Amino acid sequence: MHLFYQPNFSELSALIEDEAFHAAKVLRLREGEAVRVTDGQGSWYDAVVQSSTPKRCNLKVVQQTVQHPRPFRIEVALAPTKNMDRIEWFVEKATEIGIDTVSFFYTKHSERRNMKLERLHKIAVSAMKQSLQAFLPQIREVGDFGKYIPTVNTTQRFIAHLPEGKIPAHLLKKASPEQNYTVVIGPEGDFTEAEIQLTQQHGFEMVTLGNTRLRTETAALVACQTLHLVNIISQS
Amino acid sequence: MHLFYQPNFSELSALIEDEAFHAAKVLRLREGEAVRVTDGQGSWYDAVVQSSTPKRCNLKVVQQTVQHPRPFRIEVALAPTKNMDRIEWFVEKATEIGIDTVSFFYTKHSERRNMKLERLHKIAVSAMKQSLQAFLPQIREVGDFGKYIPTVNTTQRFIAHLPEGKIPAHLLKKASPEQNYTVVIGPEGDFTEAEIQLTQQHGFEMVTLGNTRLRTETAALVACQTLHLVNIISQS
Repeated sequence: MHLFYQPNFSELSALIEDEAFHAAKVLRLREGEAVRVTDGQGSWYDAVVQSSTPKRCNLKVVQQTVQHPRPFRIEVALAPTKNMDRIEWFVEKATEIGIDTVSFFYTKHSERRNMKLERLHKIAVSAMKQSLQAFLPQIREVGDFGKYIPTVNTTQRFIAHLPEGKIPAHLLKKASPEQNYTVVIGPEGDFTEAEIQLTQQHGFEMVTLGNTRLRTETAALVACQTLHLVNIISQS
Repeated sequence: MHLFYQPNFSELSALIEDEAFHAAKVLRLREGEAVRVTDGQGSWYDAVVQSSTPKRCNLKVVQQTVQHPRPFRIEVALAPTKNMDRIEWFVEKATEIGIDTVSFFYTKHSERRNMKLERLHKIAVSAMKQSLQAFLPQIREVGDFGKYIPTVNTTQRFIAHLPEGKIPAHLLKKASPEQNYTVVIGPEGDFTEAEIQLTQQHGFEMVTLGNTRLRTETAALVACQTLHLVNIISQS
């Protein structure tokens, strides 16, 4: 079954742009063939091809399935690594596991100051289809850390940071089920004292993600996975 | 502080082969310089360079630190994917998080039938150093699935597989703290009925790793991370 991602599908009842091109020129779909489309906002549509050109593939919807959103929301915010492969790996894996928002900020010690979000978006679309999900994560740049932190208004906010001489509680113990979470992951060079202070002024709790030292992108994925498990523990 | 991995370091009191070459030709270490060496079996040695040639770097040990092993052991067994990048990512990230054994088996639906273990070994060594650990995971091929399964004798054995029409319990709920675990992850083409049957005959419990469909290497990492969290939950 061919899977497509088409934003605004319910208004269009068709594939356009890249997906239409792929349908017509790569897959060579014909009238009558069955496809499945997600709008990235919770719905799957089973549909049948009515006509197919490289610019537009008109579809007749046979059935719409609404995937219930998770009863919690995960945002992971991180400083992008110099090596973009690592970030791409993180976006793919976090999308497979399930994530709502990936936010890239810039700190004093950031290795990188520009992003190719379009490529990350494609990776997320592909991982969303691969893992049969109907929600596309939002991937965004949020500018300087100092500007971003005060804007975070989720109920549970965490920063993966070990203060001098003290090991904070594990994220698994601090997060409560069915909440909206933001976890902030530092660059390889860590946060400055001032950056940490700012998070403390804005209600972020320090947490550990385990007792080994993790790369930025590994920590980001571990945080995401841990929050899923917080919500599994609480189920009967 | 330069970090080295030297098996049998306590007998050698020196770096040999690749590490000696690296010390002499790349880092150009001199007499008196301080280094740190792990033997990959739980010890870190703080030492001072006495002499350095491309074949041997003699060291005088100043202090030995013994890292306590975790009170649990994790083995993840999987069918290697066609794309070795994916396996390399898994080995790197699993080593960062902490894993004892990575076992590659071959099934009816395996995408690949040969492995470059040497490269994976180097990746694990690098990740071990990066994450400041002193235990090197064992990375091995275990041959055909049918031959491997009867040899598994860990106390807790799991297979990530969803039987027809039923969702098994989550690994997080099934695994107990402080045990030796083996988790078996199937190839993208899944296991055959006969392969599943064999695991059932040998005491493997079916578990789910979450409610999204994960790639082989993602499932393998999620299983590893979940088992760490089983042991965090149980701590006060």
